[in-house]
Amino acid sequence: MNPTIELLRSHRSIRKFKPDALTSEQIEAIISSAQMASSSSNVQAYSIIGVTDPGLKQELARLAGNQAYIEQCGLFLVFVADLHRLKEASALHGQPFHHNTESFLVATVDATLAAQNAAIAAESLGLGICYIGGIRNNPQNVCELLQLPELTYPVYGMCVGVPDQEPSHRPRLPRQAVYHSNRYHADKAAQGTKEYDETMYEYYRERTGGKTLTTWSQGIADKYAKPGRAHIRPFLDSRGFKLE
Amino acid sequence: MNPTIELLRSHRSIRKFKPDALTSEQIEAIISSAQMASSSSNVQAYSIIGVTDPGLKQELARLAGNQAYIEQCGLFLVFVADLHRLKEASALHGQPFHHNTESFLVATVDATLAAQNAAIAAESLGLGICYIGGIRNNPQNVCELLQLPELTYPVYGMCVGVPDQEPSHRPRLPRQAVYHSNRYHADKAAQGTKEYDETMYEYYRERTGGKTLTTWSQGIADKYAKPGRAHIRPFLDSRGFKLE
Repeated sequence: MNPTIELLRSHRSIRKFKPDALTSEQIEAIISSAQMASSSSNVQAYSIIGVTDPGLKQELARLAGNQAYIEQCGLFLVFVADLHRLKEASALHGQPFHHNTESFLVATVDATLAAQNAAIAAESLGLGICYIGGIRNNPQNVCELLQLPELTYPVYGMCVGVPDQEPSHRPRLPRQAVYHSNRYHADKAAQGTKEYDETMYEYYRERTGGKTLTTWSQGIADKYAKPGRAHIRPFLDSRGFKLE
Repeated sequence: MNPTIELLRSHRSIRKFKPDALTSEQIEAIISSAQMASSSSNVQAYSIIGVTDPGLKQELARLAGNQAYIEQCGLFLVFVADLHRLKEASALHGQPFHHNTESFLVATVDATLAAQNAAIAAESLGLGICYIGGIRNNPQNVCELLQLPELTYPVYGMCVGVPDQEPSHRPRLPRQAVYHSNRYHADKAAQGTKEYDETMYEYYRERTGGKTLTTWSQGIADKYAKPGRAHIRPFLDSRGFKLE
């Protein structure tokens, strides 16, 4: 155990921030950490938009489903999967640019490796973070607002700022449900879900003073009973990605 | 600046390992750190296979394109995007399971957030890591070897072990090519590529004693001049993912 592992293990999302802006030293530390993350074949297929403009934050908050903490946080980062820069690099040499599901995957993963480094750097500075998948609710509008070029898409946002709450840590699935030795053990995964349901029943009950009496698997079943964000595939097509 | 940010900024991939196995305390620290990463709506749509079996490592090394360090490293992790557990959770409640490109994206991102936490935890313990995208060269065989169920796929592997080399740090794209203020600045991205080409020309030249005289954009142009891993889309289809 060491301070970095303690930090990783003490993560919880922050959804209430003090209005303090980040210093340029903090932003520098966060972005330089993000950039040093691994990247597939060094393609670095991502960009980061740092949003501080109040009007822009307000509009993004609205587009993400009225999440006020996007407006409140000191810095709102949007992580963008970016094949545009690579296509331009090919064009510099007059060569064709072939892309497909693999390159979409690489760009999404590269953006996410950088994002998680940014999250950890921010937390190590005493800041709080919250990933905002809601940026995919109206992704076309987000692209227009941020003037994103073709072959890019916003994967998610991230609130970064000075925490104004002390939320508890949410329990995770039991180890044996997630970590498998040498091959996938479906029986242990199923057993883990069962145990987690009991843990989360208590967690929800305590957090809501007995009002919410449900399990994790019930929440999952309800969430996936209807299609979620069915617009994502046509949106990606419209951005020029080829999921073929 | 603090020790965690120093650690993040000093990352380099390790491709030569001492044969030491990891201790159970090390594995516990790495996996518990991975599990505390953020997850979209707490779906935790990933699994991790920890491979220590020598025969299995040898076979995975072969399938990933004869990368010997997969065999040498103390622990080989395979990060698996996992909608299987969620489908089973829905089945527990007799509810239908709707999934699409959005859910594929969520599972890939969840696996990657966990993976990067694992990487940082390992590095904080003095271990070295290397992501192995080569696991996607023959992904169907990897699924069979690891007995992965439907609606899962191996996103990449990760070598973890005691470093037996001290590689230099690879320069990254200039800040202004990657980090944009309030909106995407295509002109700065283009200028950044130009500057990076000069940096990387020197980097390759020095590292190879003058044998490799090329730029980053030339490498990108050559890489994308032909389609890469065109089998990924049909492979994902065969795993039950719906990219619709």
